[in-house]
Amino acid sequence: MNYFESVKKIQFEGTRSKNPLSFKYYNPQEKINGKTMEELLRFSVAYWHTFTADGTDPFGAGTAIRPWDHLTGMDLAKARVEAAFELFEKLDVPFFCFHDVDIAPEGRTLKESNENQDVIVAMIKEYMNTSKTKLLWNTANMFTNPRYVHGAATSCNADVFAYSAAKVKKGLEVAKELGAENYVFWGGREGYETLLNTDMALEQDNLARFFQMAIDYAKEISLNVPFLIEPKPKEPTKHQYDFDVATGLAFLQKYDLTNYFKFNIEANHATLAGHTFEHELRTARINGMLGSVDANQGDPLLGWDTDEFPTDLYSTTLAMYEILKNGGLGKGGLNFDAKVRRGSFEPEDLFHAHIAGMDSFAIGLKVANKLIEDKVLDGFIEDRYSSYTKGIGLDIVEGRTNFHQLEAYALQLKEIKNQSGRTERLKALVNQYLLETLSNVTV
Amino acid sequence: MNYFESVKKIQFEGTRSKNPLSFKYYNPQEKINGKTMEELLRFSVAYWHTFTADGTDPFGAGTAIRPWDHLTGMDLAKARVEAAFELFEKLDVPFFCFHDVDIAPEGRTLKESNENQDVIVAMIKEYMNTSKTKLLWNTANMFTNPRYVHGAATSCNADVFAYSAAKVKKGLEVAKELGAENYVFWGGREGYETLLNTDMALEQDNLARFFQMAIDYAKEISLNVPFLIEPKPKEPTKHQYDFDVATGLAFLQKYDLTNYFKFNIEANHATLAGHTFEHELRTARINGMLGSVDANQGDPLLGWDTDEFPTDLYSTTLAMYEILKNGGLGKGGLNFDAKVRRGSFEPEDLFHAHIAGMDSFAIGLKVANKLIEDKVLDGFIEDRYSSYTKGIGLDIVEGRTNFHQLEAYALQLKEIKNQSGRTERLKALVNQYLLETLSNVTV
Amino acid sequence: MNYFESVKKIQFEGTRSKNPLSFKYYNPQEKINGKTMEELLRFSVAYWHTFTADGTDPFGAGTAIRPWDHLTGMDLAKARVEAAFELFEKLDVPFFCFHDVDIAPEGRTLKESNENQDVIVAMIKEYMNTSKTKLLWNTANMFTNPRYVHGAATSCNADVFAYSAAKVKKGLEVAKELGAENYVFWGGREGYETLLNTDMALEQDNLARFFQMAIDYAKEISLNVPFLIEPKPKEPTKHQYDFDVATGLAFLQKYDLTNYFKFNIEANHATLAGHTFEHELRTARINGMLGSVDANQGDPLLGWDTDEFPTDLYSTTLAMYEILKNGGLGKGGLNFDAKVRRGSFEPEDLFHAHIAGMDSFAIGLKVANKLIEDKVLDGFIEDRYSSYTKGIGLDIVEGRTNFHQLEAYALQLKEIKNQSGRTERLKALVNQYLLETLSNVTV
Amino acid sequence: MNYFESVKKIQFEGTRSKNPLSFKYYNPQEKINGKTMEELLRFSVAYWHTFTADGTDPFGAGTAIRPWDHLTGMDLAKARVEAAFELFEKLDVPFFCFHDVDIAPEGRTLKESNENQDVIVAMIKEYMNTSKTKLLWNTANMFTNPRYVHGAATSCNADVFAYSAAKVKKGLEVAKELGAENYVFWGGREGYETLLNTDMALEQDNLARFFQMAIDYAKEISLNVPFLIEPKPKEPTKHQYDFDVATGLAFLQKYDLTNYFKFNIEANHATLAGHTFEHELRTARINGMLGSVDANQGDPLLGWDTDEFPTDLYSTTLAMYEILKNGGLGKGGLNFDAKVRRGSFEPEDLFHAHIAGMDSFAIGLKVANKLIEDKVLDGFIEDRYSSYTKGIGLDIVEGRTNFHQLEAYALQLKEIKNQSGRTERLKALVNQYLLETLSNVTV
Repeated sequence: MNYFESVKKIQFEGTRSKNPLSFKYYNPQEKINGKTMEELLRFSVAYWHTFTADGTDPFGAGTAIRPWDHLTGMDLAKARVEAAFELFEKLDVPFFCFHDVDIAPEGRTLKESNENQDVIVAMIKEYMNTSKTKLLWNTANMFTNPRYVHGAATSCNADVFAYSAAKVKKGLEVAKELGAENYVFWGGREGYETLLNTDMALEQDNLARFFQMAIDYAKEISLNVPFLIEPKPKEPTKHQYDFDVATGLAFLQKYDLTNYFKFNIEANHATLAGHTFEHELRTARINGMLGSVDANQGDPLLGWDTDEFPTDLYSTTLAMYEILKNGGLGKGGLNFDAKVRRGSFEPEDLFHAHIAGMDSFAIGLKVANKLIEDKVLDGFIEDRYSSYTKGIGLDIVEGRTNFHQLEAYALQLKEIKNQSGRTERLKALVNQYLLETLSNVTV
Repeated sequence: MNYFESVKKIQFEGTRSKNPLSFKYYNPQEKINGKTMEELLRFSVAYWHTFTADGTDPFGAGTAIRPWDHLTGMDLAKARVEAAFELFEKLDVPFFCFHDVDIAPEGRTLKESNENQDVIVAMIKEYMNTSKTKLLWNTANMFTNPRYVHGAATSCNADVFAYSAAKVKKGLEVAKELGAENYVFWGGREGYETLLNTDMALEQDNLARFFQMAIDYAKEISLNVPFLIEPKPKEPTKHQYDFDVATGLAFLQKYDLTNYFKFNIEANHATLAGHTFEHELRTARINGMLGSVDANQGDPLLGWDTDEFPTDLYSTTLAMYEILKNGGLGKGGLNFDAKVRRGSFEPEDLFHAHIAGMDSFAIGLKVANKLIEDKVLDGFIEDRYSSYTKGIGLDIVEGRTNFHQLEAYALQLKEIKNQSGRTERLKALVNQYLLETLSNVTV
Repeated sequence: MNYFESVKKIQFEGTRSKNPLSFKYYNPQEKINGKTMEELLRFSVAYWHTFTADGTDPFGAGTAIRPWDHLTGMDLAKARVEAAFELFEKLDVPFFCFHDVDIAPEGRTLKESNENQDVIVAMIKEYMNTSKTKLLWNTANMFTNPRYVHGAATSCNADVFAYSAAKVKKGLEVAKELGAENYVFWGGREGYETLLNTDMALEQDNLARFFQMAIDYAKEISLNVPFLIEPKPKEPTKHQYDFDVATGLAFLQKYDLTNYFKFNIEANHATLAGHTFEHELRTARINGMLGSVDANQGDPLLGWDTDEFPTDLYSTTLAMYEILKNGGLGKGGLNFDAKVRRGSFEPEDLFHAHIAGMDSFAIGLKVANKLIEDKVLDGFIEDRYSSYTKGIGLDIVEGRTNFHQLEAYALQLKEIKNQSGRTERLKALVNQYLLETLSNVTV
Repeated sequence: MNYFESVKKIQFEGTRSKNPLSFKYYNPQEKINGKTMEELLRFSVAYWHTFTADGTDPFGAGTAIRPWDHLTGMDLAKARVEAAFELFEKLDVPFFCFHDVDIAPEGRTLKESNENQDVIVAMIKEYMNTSKTKLLWNTANMFTNPRYVHGAATSCNADVFAYSAAKVKKGLEVAKELGAENYVFWGGREGYETLLNTDMALEQDNLARFFQMAIDYAKEISLNVPFLIEPKPKEPTKHQYDFDVATGLAFLQKYDLTNYFKFNIEANHATLAGHTFEHELRTARINGMLGSVDANQGDPLLGWDTDEFPTDLYSTTLAMYEILKNGGLGKGGLNFDAKVRRGSFEPEDLFHAHIAGMDSFAIGLKVANKLIEDKVLDGFIEDRYSSYTKGIGLDIVEGRTNFHQLEAYALQLKEIKNQSGRTERLKALVNQYLLETLSNVTV
């Protein structure tokens, strides 16, 4: 069956095309520094937003019109798989991601849920045999069902901890079965509503115990993939334990888990935590913990997770800058954890939105690459910090000095000269590169 | 004397120039739809940020290095005038703006302050005789001096009200003397620290009385210029009475002042109030109240007025879109109420920053103009609201129907069909226009 | 049938009671200045949060355990009515509020929806015959159904405008039928997702047309109750037209609707707009537009509408201060537009939450009343503004002066003396009154 | 000389006193569980806000009227010491805190600055001989002088690093000389304005090197006091490296510095980072890192550091709850890093404000102590997490289980039962304790 009949495979038509259903900037086989755009960007479709969600918001019912709306239960689940691979193929997207409950309905019992999942996993596996699209990561949804009302691995209820363990065990098995490149943990309910009723120390200890058991089981089944923590500060929980990258890092270090985990960084979660997207990427990068990316954007004037498709070219450029500096994302990718607006409810909008996102990151990639090639920022930074490459600065960096020597040095200093940080000039340069890079003209 | 020796008159060198001290996109004489960029953009330099401020922040002393740092008092004031007109000429900027205390030091008495101001006003007037640069607006600073600690026109102290009246009287006379195109009111202290000690009703009544007296005096001296209120929600005051455009409008309507006032809209004040810049411009525009613009930008992750030079091209494009739709700004202009970052403390940064801002608005102008020319948004909107051009929709718009008829109509409706709002597609189109317009290629 | 068997009628047991299911501070018949607490507070239960909602949040399914969970359709609707009046009686609450879709399920057609509503309205009316509980207000839900995806009265689709008119027509008839004391408009979808596709001028004009037709119809059916606009800045819509009280006021003034409308002010909406609750109440009060109150609270660290039950005694005290200064709420009341947290999912929590809210406002009432009786703030304010009761200040207030006279006055002023605003002292006094008022000791 | 003649030593006069200049709730010698309030609260006056600051804000000059306003230079510095000890004595406050530049003016050279400081340190030492007031902590101001424009220990300029080292060396010596109980680091400039020009990895490495050298030097001079990091997310810097407690902890762990550092937690910095005050205290507490407290409060609707005197009794209660649970603050204290509002400019306001703050924390102490004594929250929590004290829960906590066993357990579970978190009831209880504790009645 063909779910998106009106949409043909999306073509690369270059920037001047008036055809809205075409890539203007993304060309998977185009090479940047010897690698294809496809290899560098590793785009992924989020199953939940694109095939499961329906446009519900806290004040309104679903608006989405989908070709599978007439189906229910396992029939619906199967139709979504078919539609998914049709969309993957039309968008030429190399990866997808899912939560267990996205692909198969929960049963009345855990056993039934697992059986439902098995059926769909088998179906997906078969599709994957003939598709280029691979599984970037899967995860267990431990936030929707009421049983997680007080948390999953941090629930005050040990039964819920056990149930969650069973879910992740299954999730790891599915990851193995489908050759997932990563496994993700998002702790939407791992946090608290109010400190008045919360034993934060016990909850965090339990979370660490949970992660350690997950590591042990992954080893047991030889699942050798990065585990990814996805920080988010708040929503749905009042406060989540994995607030941001730094908070996650403190946790992992405390419980000696850094060797097994990296971060899956989401743009909108970064801004909800008071950081820029690039700040979170940089923080992960310089700590060797940049795993994967949930590519979306928030609305800086709204206080919740809007999960918009990424179209802000500043954000995509600075994100790709960090990613290129990181030597790429390794096993990670750019997963569109993004949903069409509730008002963009037609099937075609799913394509418009993914094209917008993929084009935006393709532009970001090109501009970031050019900024690096031309050493626009690196050159400035090299010069700016040059005092640490000689004299007292080199002594500091190489650990050869102390407060006595530094004081002696400082006492003989005349006036200290600083140089302008040139923020405005650097921003103008980024604009210039944004506007000129795609014209293929040397800036 | 030459204050900025190292900087020559800024040239238009097109986008490919590597010379940082040149316009890449702004070309004052370039025509867009029959008008020059200079006429359409009406750029203005803010005297306070560029000639008076020194980079102080709440935790740090001034960092700015300025050629006039060795001077004080009236000598300093005069040097700043000289430097100002040098910078205006080098940047080829057609307007400037000032508060009274920016241009001349306060004296020990009001009389002395006025005399100081007279000297500098005369000097400025002479410079203006041979300069192209005109006064976009002036205003009275009624927030820095401790006497305004509880407000100016809304002070709990009638002496302060009287003193403020004297200041604005003088300001209106200076506006007349220098041929200002507008007169601005910014009520940084017109609001409250806490409602516990505040008679809000009396304070707002007094503010209206103050404005009415200002109108009366302007008529008396035949100063026929728009009065502009500049909304800002908070900072320095906990809460200001002119929170945003809508709040200002409610005030003006209540006190029957709408005929004499328009709004001076600042981008960073808009975002502090929870709105986009373009929202505030649109709100003013559709109410016929768009007077002038303080062109800057805030940091969406910081909660105070950062007054950055505008470089975000989305913001400049959408602002110019509203301005073009408004038929331009009339007597208003784009005033750079923006300061170089504290770390950009060299004189040259003043030029980098203004170039960045002027280029950014020049790009915004071109992209917005192309969006309008091609009816990219207008076409979509025309179609989207077409149901109001016929049948029941036309009846609604033309006031020919009522709840009885509408209910009868609704009762016979089958399923209501809506169409996608296409947000993602429209954002992708804006990106495409941003990247392509300057390549002079038809998108 | 008895839905809340375990809960007896809530008794007033004073502050020392250890029984959690009793009022500690609220005593409906206790008199404050000659009026009972019941008359002064006019509490109301929100049907939607208490009988219809189930604890769903954007990341999770409903958690609520309710005695009527096994029912569906009209049976469910009827059970809710029974449970509602049981709860009203047990809480001794004099009012309730509802949206049309809260009380009766939507049918397949508008006609069927109206018929469903008629059945339940009749049932409610019968219950009201023998209950003390009256209808504070009703309203039409014009945001949940997908048809309102682009707005109701501001939809780009004229069919939706017509459908909305039919809904409000019915709502006004129900208000008449049940003797509602007010009728409310909350425009959750009246706003925009993006300005790129929005004709803001047309949408606001249409909204005014809609309101005018509602006024006309109310007159026709002799429904003489205040119409209330409920401001909210954002969520679910990106930006709503009724952002806050001032914005609503600007709109009403522009379209000459001030005589027919007042405001229903919600605490959490105030803070989302960047205001305190008391600011919004004050703004409405001094403009004669304070109609009713949605009594809840937000979380100042979360950016969405958390609709918590009000327990912050500062907020309830300052709110009651404004309300007492307003001479009460007239036909309005304190409606608990508040929901138990998702983790408070047991039926008993509905009682705990309402007791918490009612007690908190009862405390606020007593403290505010004592602050007024003792002229704690009024005395300070009288003194603070005393310069406007004589001399130049009186001239200003009485419109007997102008800029000439004020300048002359200012020129002869020596140093201007201000007095401390004493914010810290006033806050300490509020604390003292909060802690001491209930001890019945003169502070 | 007597600087505050109008103010006598502040007496404890109980809650009913009408004398504004008296403690209503704080009584230093009153015992709570065997310790005096003085011992438990360890109040400290912040030298900078109370003796150095003048009410300047970003839009206004200083308003403060101080008895030492006529002095300058070292005379001013000495007068402030005299006034300080007068205020300490009148408020009966056991501690104070200062930055180097608060107590003595910077000289033209580092040497001269140190000499100035030496003079004042000697004077302070002499005062301390006959005063009960001790030094809670001192610190080096490395943010006001323009030399720190790009940071201190994280400056891009090695000279600034060296100069900062000399400053901290001196600071440690002064701490030793005056018997400081802690030494504080606040990195207001340790962060970045823009990532475009920042080498974050090098800067953080350098910061760690700096801290290690400080540890080495403290050991050398036998200064055995806790080093305290004071987290703050932003302001003045766009983004600071010590964003919050968790971020600081991640840093300390990475560089193996946890043994030497604890945190100085400021309420207003917590909220700027998106956390409650009690969240930051709890996070530090459960990691054994709670050092000291900067006792103030922010305005939840304002986005900058307002440093208000703490009067919110919820905040003081929940803070004291964490502190009591921590077994007190050890060598730390409650330092009023708080400033009178700009409008509270009279000397007397300094007393009103400190009384307000001290009373508020005294109330918080009593209420928190009563909550603990009655096991109000502990009892609820014990029950809530009881599933971890037996069966599978105990196995989890004691590390005796794994995913296999947990899955087996989960598969045999019937429906999982959770219990309500009772947020609303717990909040009502906190209100009840707040209102009743001081009445000395068993709640």
